[in-house]
Amino acid sequence: MAPQYAPSLRSRLAPLLLILQTAFITIAALCFENKQTNNLDRKSFLDFYPEFQDVNVMVILGFGFLCTFPVRYGFSGLGFNLLVAVIATQWALILNGIDSLYNTRIIRIDLKSIINAELCAVSALISIGSVLGKINPVQLTLIALLEVTGFVLNDWLHQTLMKVRPLNSIMELHVFGALFGLMLTWILYRNGSAQGFEKEKFDKKSGLFSMLGTVFLWMFWPSFNSVLVDDQTQLEAVCSTYLALAVSAVTAAALTMLSSPRGKLNPIQMQSCILAGGVAIGISISALQQPWEAMALGFTAAIISAMGFRYLKTHLLIAFDCHDTCSVLSTHGLPGLLGWLAQLVLQIKDCDDHTVAIRFAVFHISALFITICVSLTTGILTAFLLKWNFWRPPQNKKCFDDQAFWEVFTHKSLRKKFLHQKKKKSH
Amino acid sequence: MAPQYAPSLRSRLAPLLLILQTAFITIAALCFENKQTNNLDRKSFLDFYPEFQDVNVMVILGFGFLCTFPVRYGFSGLGFNLLVAVIATQWALILNGIDSLYNTRIIRIDLKSIINAELCAVSALISIGSVLGKINPVQLTLIALLEVTGFVLNDWLHQTLMKVRPLNSIMELHVFGALFGLMLTWILYRNGSAQGFEKEKFDKKSGLFSMLGTVFLWMFWPSFNSVLVDDQTQLEAVCSTYLALAVSAVTAAALTMLSSPRGKLNPIQMQSCILAGGVAIGISISALQQPWEAMALGFTAAIISAMGFRYLKTHLLIAFDCHDTCSVLSTHGLPGLLGWLAQLVLQIKDCDDHTVAIRFAVFHISALFITICVSLTTGILTAFLLKWNFWRPPQNKKCFDDQAFWEVFTHKSLRKKFLHQKKKKSH
Amino acid sequence: MAPQYAPSLRSRLAPLLLILQTAFITIAALCFENKQTNNLDRKSFLDFYPEFQDVNVMVILGFGFLCTFPVRYGFSGLGFNLLVAVIATQWALILNGIDSLYNTRIIRIDLKSIINAELCAVSALISIGSVLGKINPVQLTLIALLEVTGFVLNDWLHQTLMKVRPLNSIMELHVFGALFGLMLTWILYRNGSAQGFEKEKFDKKSGLFSMLGTVFLWMFWPSFNSVLVDDQTQLEAVCSTYLALAVSAVTAAALTMLSSPRGKLNPIQMQSCILAGGVAIGISISALQQPWEAMALGFTAAIISAMGFRYLKTHLLIAFDCHDTCSVLSTHGLPGLLGWLAQLVLQIKDCDDHTVAIRFAVFHISALFITICVSLTTGILTAFLLKWNFWRPPQNKKCFDDQAFWEVFTHKSLRKKFLHQKKKKSH
Repeated sequence: MAPQYAPSLRSRLAPLLLILQTAFITIAALCFENKQTNNLDRKSFLDFYPEFQDVNVMVILGFGFLCTFPVRYGFSGLGFNLLVAVIATQWALILNGIDSLYNTRIIRIDLKSIINAELCAVSALISIGSVLGKINPVQLTLIALLEVTGFVLNDWLHQTLMKVRPLNSIMELHVFGALFGLMLTWILYRNGSAQGFEKEKFDKKSGLFSMLGTVFLWMFWPSFNSVLVDDQTQLEAVCSTYLALAVSAVTAAALTMLSSPRGKLNPIQMQSCILAGGVAIGISISALQQPWEAMALGFTAAIISAMGFRYLKTHLLIAFDCHDTCSVLSTHGLPGLLGWLAQLVLQIKDCDDHTVAIRFAVFHISALFITICVSLTTGILTAFLLKWNFWRPPQNKKCFDDQAFWEVFTHKSLRKKFLHQKKKKSH
Repeated sequence: MAPQYAPSLRSRLAPLLLILQTAFITIAALCFENKQTNNLDRKSFLDFYPEFQDVNVMVILGFGFLCTFPVRYGFSGLGFNLLVAVIATQWALILNGIDSLYNTRIIRIDLKSIINAELCAVSALISIGSVLGKINPVQLTLIALLEVTGFVLNDWLHQTLMKVRPLNSIMELHVFGALFGLMLTWILYRNGSAQGFEKEKFDKKSGLFSMLGTVFLWMFWPSFNSVLVDDQTQLEAVCSTYLALAVSAVTAAALTMLSSPRGKLNPIQMQSCILAGGVAIGISISALQQPWEAMALGFTAAIISAMGFRYLKTHLLIAFDCHDTCSVLSTHGLPGLLGWLAQLVLQIKDCDDHTVAIRFAVFHISALFITICVSLTTGILTAFLLKWNFWRPPQNKKCFDDQAFWEVFTHKSLRKKFLHQKKKKSH
Repeated sequence: MAPQYAPSLRSRLAPLLLILQTAFITIAALCFENKQTNNLDRKSFLDFYPEFQDVNVMVILGFGFLCTFPVRYGFSGLGFNLLVAVIATQWALILNGIDSLYNTRIIRIDLKSIINAELCAVSALISIGSVLGKINPVQLTLIALLEVTGFVLNDWLHQTLMKVRPLNSIMELHVFGALFGLMLTWILYRNGSAQGFEKEKFDKKSGLFSMLGTVFLWMFWPSFNSVLVDDQTQLEAVCSTYLALAVSAVTAAALTMLSSPRGKLNPIQMQSCILAGGVAIGISISALQQPWEAMALGFTAAIISAMGFRYLKTHLLIAFDCHDTCSVLSTHGLPGLLGWLAQLVLQIKDCDDHTVAIRFAVFHISALFITICVSLTTGILTAFLLKWNFWRPPQNKKCFDDQAFWEVFTHKSLRKKFLHQKKKKSH
């Protein structure tokens, strides 16, 4: 039976959303100013708009449909993804502008700043993949707020301590999101769920919707990797990413068959692994020079991701009580670390001077170290906040179930109301 | 059982379509000339093509999949939308060119004129949302023809009487379509349908297809609003629209929960309300200057749309016998009027001179008045034409049912035919 | 029951894919060089990237979802399409570069060369439509390799023997793919399948996924036709293609109703016919000058395609034992030939000089003749190679069934494993 009433929604989520939204509008009224970076001509519109559109498609459609695979969790997967994305983007717009607010008393809003804010939101979307189906939208909203705060803090630390250029933040995104998500799902582990959730499965149709999301991510990943690169290297970035994704797709298919007990393909594993090449390239893009390097990286990333999906995921569940729904560790975490390693190796290989190489290695390792520390810390803090029963997490049997949150509206209810009112009228 | 034969299709729709299409080709042969506006270089291609593509995606994919939510009406929702869109676009191409035909004896066809024609077609697509599932494709084709005629007439009246610039027609589109559709569904009301239609409901999968359409509309709405704006304000238009849509999404979620009897979310209501911000911005775009204005407008639009969906829709059905399937009134009509009001208020607020302000108010109110009059008149005329039994409207029990129009082709029929002919051969 | 083990996958497909991919990476390491055609500025990125993206969307999403209509074959349709596309693209990148390898010892990889390689891959995607559901992915991989080889050979013959410009290869694509596919399905005909396959049918949801693919192809076809055209004619190409597609959609609807025994619409027939106009325009684009010519061509193409789908497909099956799953003959073959004929007629009509006209006719006819010869020959050779039982083709009853290749992963299996290991641990 469908639950009659959702305790977490009307009394928790609705006020939270209204308060948040009013606060955002108030902050906007006080600080936002609509100023486009360049002179406002047609050219600069054509320059930025397609990038914005592509990132938007990935964030809303790609990640959204990716989360629709549980057979009874389609509306939630897509709808809550949209909700988290727009809240996280608005919050990131504000946080990213604090620096400029301090200096100039206004936050400039242009297409570039919205693109940056959406990239920050992506880290939150990655994390919620690990707890998909097991928490309620109030908790998701809190994750959106806290993770974006952590991510912007991490960015700020990189820029202040390490003098890293802002564009390298794309590197942190996948690793940050994966580790943050892992902490969440580890601390929020439910005792009753040891034997798995009743409704955590996919069928042919929900699997196809999820494939749709994956295919969109696959197709638009080149845009994603080229957004934060210098103008001169954008074409190369696109080519490298495409090649790595193509190689990933072939390798993922082979590895999935080899690692499956029945020697068959697995749609969910495929979905996770064909994207691995794109993640790895995104992080190491500045160091890649030849097409074969990108292809080899895509090959390795797919292998690591496929192995991670098949063996690490189960191991995490059994040994650490850590249930990673969308296996963000093997989709984003491991390929991200691989890309980080590839960049280290390639950069050092290209260095003639020993001192420079060692300096780069130290720099590169500490950058990763900061990211890992910040993501683990903020992840653990967020998870403990979410553990609070005040948020009314769904019961085990209502996990992965749309009916806990969505009113499946039939015309019946409208008809009943109609007959009821007609009766009242005739009296 | 599936009906064996569709009375309205072979003897009504097929000849109508063939005659229409032959007529369009003949007119094209006599008057169309393929002349691109600008010099034909690569730049002008890159200039117009992405806009065309985005509008095309909204018209065909966005509106098409939006109409697939009734559980047994997916093929019809998507297929008839495509049919109406292409007929309306061709007809609008001709009607929009009458002026130039009169002056230069040719109608110039370029990408810009196709984009304009598609925008005219959108008004028809909005209207058919209100009668979705209740009329047959012959009637839909007639609506496409008559509504586009009305819309172009309205445009011409605006430009002749009021000296309005053509780009303001985007304003009229939502209000015009909503009122036209409301008249249709009011006059075409079926007596037996008081208790609702048996098949007017959605399930998890058809709801997700509909969400897909909504998400596409949501993502590409910035393009839609920026198409008819001056080059200088396109970037601002995109930012404002994005912000308003983001705020709409959050507010729609909160309001849906608050207005639902069980305190849950409702997918169809969400779909209708998250777009409200985009509609409102589209109409008031020239008056908006700061991001917070766009956000506040998105906030208000979502509230009005959500309230309209929950209370006004039922009220219209009970009090006025007006069954608005896709609730175009609350999705397009009310936010459109709100945007109109916002523009009035903002423009007057910015005016220092009283006389100018009053003159603008008079102008603005009469523009709306003309649109309302034309849409109501043409809507009522169209509806009375459609009431004619000659068009063989579907019976009540066949409403919202693909099987009335679509042959669900299995290989069985092919097999039967095969065996039959094999037998004949062997004799 | 689901088959327990897929004999063709682990022992055949996985090694084949790994060997192929390793070989591709090795070749890339030896010969590929990442060199973009133009100077590496922002402009050239904006110039090429949208085209690449559009072609990519058509190849991966359009053709992929088009193949999901069989009710139990969704994962295979989409997944194997992706696999074939990426393998064929990589192989085409290498083959297309042989010429430059010979001259300069490197193969330049840029966005333009990837677009060209994807177009070569499209010919393979068209062909596999004719054998969809009846062969296994090992055979599909071989088709990808051999067909691309044949297509590149055909291209080379055209350029060497006929001095045709490379951009005319888009013409060959549809005809080449259709004839190649027809040969495949004719020679690979299965005796038991005379009465049709048990699972070759569609339902409402799988039909909608397939419609999604069609709609994407329909919307992005203008990009497809404009990719290989000169900069000056791109805008015209887009307008012509849009008009032809619009006319095709209307005509296809009318013809489908007229040719159906029950006078209803047929979703699969519609899908095949609304694209006919785009195919015909693609081939004759350089000869078209007025909009009405494009519209008339779209009209004729839709008629031929609809008639072909209804009568020729059955006839082929009965008379020639040739089972064409996606009816590539009527979708790509016949409209392609029609476009070829239209170009011949239009070019000759425009010629004032008899000698030039005859010379053009001879040239045009021999170009088609070469394409037909090469596609039939390579198609027959490929088919005989695939007949070899070593590839373990699926049994008749496992045709059109995902379960032969895909592990429908439920959480159950994970749970079982979990409980098993927990038990082991506790011992």
